[in-house]
Amino acid sequence: MFNRDRLRKSLYSFMPPFLLAMLVIVPGALLAAEGTGAEEAGHAALDIPLIFLWIAIILMLAKVSSLVERLGQPAVLGELLIGVACGSLYLVGIDFFDPIKSSPIIHFMAELGVVILLFQIGIESSVKTMMKVGVPSFLVACVGVILPLCAIYFLGPLIVPGLSSTAYLFLGATMTATSVGITARVLQDLNQSNCPEARIIIGAAVIDDVLGLIILAVVSAIVTRGTVDVGTVSVIVIKAVVFLGGGVLLGTWLAPRLSRFFSAIHTGIGMKFAVVISFGLVFAYLAALVGLAPIVGAFTAGLILTPVYFNQFSEPPFIDDLRKAVKEVNGSVVGKIEQVIETHSHKHIEEFTSHLGHFFLPIFFVLTGMQVKIAALYDMKVLVMSLLILVIAIITKVVAGLAAGRGVSKLTVGVGMIPRGEVGLIFANMGKAMGVMDDTVFSAIVVVIMLTTLITPPMLAAVFKRAD
Amino acid sequence: MFNRDRLRKSLYSFMPPFLLAMLVIVPGALLAAEGTGAEEAGHAALDIPLIFLWIAIILMLAKVSSLVERLGQPAVLGELLIGVACGSLYLVGIDFFDPIKSSPIIHFMAELGVVILLFQIGIESSVKTMMKVGVPSFLVACVGVILPLCAIYFLGPLIVPGLSSTAYLFLGATMTATSVGITARVLQDLNQSNCPEARIIIGAAVIDDVLGLIILAVVSAIVTRGTVDVGTVSVIVIKAVVFLGGGVLLGTWLAPRLSRFFSAIHTGIGMKFAVVISFGLVFAYLAALVGLAPIVGAFTAGLILTPVYFNQFSEPPFIDDLRKAVKEVNGSVVGKIEQVIETHSHKHIEEFTSHLGHFFLPIFFVLTGMQVKIAALYDMKVLVMSLLILVIAIITKVVAGLAAGRGVSKLTVGVGMIPRGEVGLIFANMGKAMGVMDDTVFSAIVVVIMLTTLITPPMLAAVFKRAD
Repeated sequence: MFNRDRLRKSLYSFMPPFLLAMLVIVPGALLAAEGTGAEEAGHAALDIPLIFLWIAIILMLAKVSSLVERLGQPAVLGELLIGVACGSLYLVGIDFFDPIKSSPIIHFMAELGVVILLFQIGIESSVKTMMKVGVPSFLVACVGVILPLCAIYFLGPLIVPGLSSTAYLFLGATMTATSVGITARVLQDLNQSNCPEARIIIGAAVIDDVLGLIILAVVSAIVTRGTVDVGTVSVIVIKAVVFLGGGVLLGTWLAPRLSRFFSAIHTGIGMKFAVVISFGLVFAYLAALVGLAPIVGAFTAGLILTPVYFNQFSEPPFIDDLRKAVKEVNGSVVGKIEQVIETHSHKHIEEFTSHLGHFFLPIFFVLTGMQVKIAALYDMKVLVMSLLILVIAIITKVVAGLAAGRGVSKLTVGVGMIPRGEVGLIFANMGKAMGVMDDTVFSAIVVVIMLTTLITPPMLAAVFKRAD
Repeated sequence: MFNRDRLRKSLYSFMPPFLLAMLVIVPGALLAAEGTGAEEAGHAALDIPLIFLWIAIILMLAKVSSLVERLGQPAVLGELLIGVACGSLYLVGIDFFDPIKSSPIIHFMAELGVVILLFQIGIESSVKTMMKVGVPSFLVACVGVILPLCAIYFLGPLIVPGLSSTAYLFLGATMTATSVGITARVLQDLNQSNCPEARIIIGAAVIDDVLGLIILAVVSAIVTRGTVDVGTVSVIVIKAVVFLGGGVLLGTWLAPRLSRFFSAIHTGIGMKFAVVISFGLVFAYLAALVGLAPIVGAFTAGLILTPVYFNQFSEPPFIDDLRKAVKEVNGSVVGKIEQVIETHSHKHIEEFTSHLGHFFLPIFFVLTGMQVKIAALYDMKVLVMSLLILVIAIITKVVAGLAAGRGVSKLTVGVGMIPRGEVGLIFANMGKAMGVMDDTVFSAIVVVIMLTTLITPPMLAAVFKRAD
C-alpha cells in the first residue's frame, strides 16, 4: 500500500511544481472568493467553477488524509480530522473554507454521498440476511434508545442542575438515535460491511430511526400540549412500518419487472446504471416523505436490489471481450478465468455506486468535519458538561450492545452504535427553539455529537483488531 | 439492443405496478413541491430528498428517450426533446418541472456533467493528435467566426430592419461561437469521438471560445466607449494563450509528478480517481479564471492526462484477479486474454469518468431541453426572424467547414460546428441589458440557439451515415 522512500523522493520532486501551482490557484481562488468581479470580460461566471475547485480540494484533502491508515486508523477518521482542521482555519484568519461550509450545493452533494454509501451497503446485503438479524437488531435498538433517554433524564439534574424536567427529556432524546453514516463507512474501510455485527448495527440503526421519529413526536407533544395523542404516534408508526414493510414487498415485486421493462427499451450500461441509481434515489425520497431519514430509504432500496434482477442487460464491454477471448482459447484450462468473470460480472452494479461514492463520499465526511465548532471546546463549562454526557452516551450504547445475543461480538455492536448525528441535532434545535434549552446546553450537545463521531472510527478499528 | 416483443410483453406486466408506484410518488411529489409542511413531525426536510427524486426522474426520462435510437438518431436528441416536452408541460398547467428548471443544484450538476463530458473526450485524445489538426482547426474556427459576424452585420438590416449598427454587431456576435457540448455528445453517441473530423471540430470549438472572448471584449468596448482598447484585447489574448499553452506545458510536466506523489501516499483506486477528477476540475476552474469556458479547461486537462501517468497505482481488483487466474492457467494459450487485460487496464481512468458521466450528463441535456421556451415560437414575427437567422447561422458554419482541408469530410466538420450555446446567450443578454436589442430580437436569438442545438444531432448522424 505505502512506500515511505518513494513518498520522500516524490515529495522533493513534487514540491517545486506544487508551490508553482499553488501560486496560480490560491490567489485565483481568494480573488474569486472575494467576488471582486475581476471576470467581467470573461463569459464564465466564477460561482460554478469555484465549486469545481472546492470539490477538487476536498477530494485531494480527503485522499491525503488517508495517511491515517498508516497508523491503523480507518480512512474516514482522516477525512473528519482534515475537515475539522480546515473548518477551523477561520480562527487564524483564513476564511477560504467558510463559503464551502455554507454552500447549499456542497451540502447537497454531501447528502447524496451518504445516501449512496447506505445504498451501496444495502446492495452488498439482502433482505434475507437482514431478516436473520431482525431480533437482535430490534433488541439492540430498543435498549439503545431507552437507556440513554432514562439515564440522562435521571442523571441530568446532577450534570446540568436547574433545568425543567422537559429539558432533561429533550436532552435524553438527543442521545437516543444512532447516526449510521460514520459506522457504515468505518465498516467499509475495514472491509467488514458484511459481518453479522455490521448487519446487526445497521439493522438497529434503521429501527433507531423509526424509534427516533416516535420519540420526537411524543416529546414535542408533551412540550407543546402537555399530553401525548395516541393517534399521532400511531400514524407515525404506521407510516414507517408501511414504508419499510410495504417498500420491501412492493420493491421486491417491482424491481425485476422494472429491470425487464427498461432492458426492453435499452440494454446498455447507461440504462442499467440509471435504473439502479433511480431506484435508490426514489426510495430515499419516499423515506423522507414518511418522515424517515433518506439514508434509511436508500439502504432499503439497496437491500431489495440483487444483481440477478439485471440479467437482461448487456454485459460491460470488458466482460464481453473477455468472454470472447476465453472462447477463442481452447476449452478446459480456462475454467478458472470463467469463474473470475462470473464473479465480477455480478459485481457490476456495485461498481457503479462505488465510483459515485468515490466522488460524493469524501464531500460528506470532510464537510462533517468542517462543521465541528472547535471554538465550542474553549468554554470549560461546556467542555465538562459535554464530557459527562459523552460518558453516558457511550456507556448506554455499549450496554445496548449486550442485547445483540450470542455468537457475535457484543462490544463491537455496542461501539458501532455510538455515533449520534442529525436526529440529535434536530432535537437540540427544537429544544432551543422552544426555549427549554439554553445556548450552553445546546453547545454541549453539539460537542457530544461531534465527539461521538470522532471517537467511533478509532474505537471500532480497535475493537475489530481485538476480535481478530 | 432492442426487442420489440419483450417491450410489449413487459409493458403489460409493468403497467399495474407503474401506476401503483405513481399513485405513491406523484401525489407525494406534488405535496412536497407545494411546501405544505406536511413533514413537520419528520426529521428530514424534503428539499434535498426532492432533488433526489428529480435526479431519478431526469435519469429515467433520459434513458426512456433513448428510444429515438431506433429511428437512427443519437440518444442526445431524445434527451433534448424529452427535456423540451417536460419543460413545456407548464403550458398545460403541470408545473412539476418548473422548480427543476430553476434549481441551482440541478444547474450545477448539469454544468459538472458537460465538464466531465469534455474531460472524458480530452482523455480519449491527446495533445499530440490535437496538434496534428491545429492548422485546419484554426482555419475552421476563424472562418466560422468571421463569416456569421459579417453575414449578419450586413444582411441583418434586411431581416430585422431599423436597428442600430451596434445591434447588428451584437446580433452577428451571438452567432459566432460554437457550443461544443452537443456536438461532442453526438460524436460520442455515434462512437466517432476520435475520428479526424471530431478532432478538428473540437479543436476549432476551443479556438472559437478564445475568439469569442476577444469579440466579446471588442464589441462591448465599441458599445460602451465607442472605441477599442488594444491593451484590453491583448490582455485577453495573452491570458487565453498562457492558459492553453502554459497549461499544456505545465500540466504535462506536472501530471506524472502529481501521480507519483499521490501514489506514494496511497495506491488505491480512490486516490487515482481523486487525482484524475481533481486535475480536470482544477483546470476547469482555471479556465474560468482567465475568462474561458470551464469545458475548455476540462478538455485541456483531459488531453494532458494519459493512462501511462497512472502506472504507479494499484490495478482495479478485477484486473488483479484476472492476472492471478491467468498465471495459474498454463502459459501460452492465454496470450489473448493477457492482451485483453492489458487493453482494459489502460482504460481504467476512462471508466471512472464514464460512470460519473452516466450520472451527470443526462442532467445537462435534459435541462438544456427544458430551457427551450416553446412559447417563443408562437410569435410569427419571432419565428420568421429566427428561421432567417438560422439559415445564415447554418450556412456560414457549413462553409467554414470547407477550411478543414483535404482528407476529411468538410461537410461533417461544418455541420459539427453548427450548435451555438452559452456564449451566444451571454451576448444576447448583454445586448438586451445595454438596450441595443429589444425582446423580439432577444427571443429570436434564443430560438435560433435552441434550434441549432436540436437540429445538429440528426444532421450530424445523417452526414456520418452518408460518409460511411
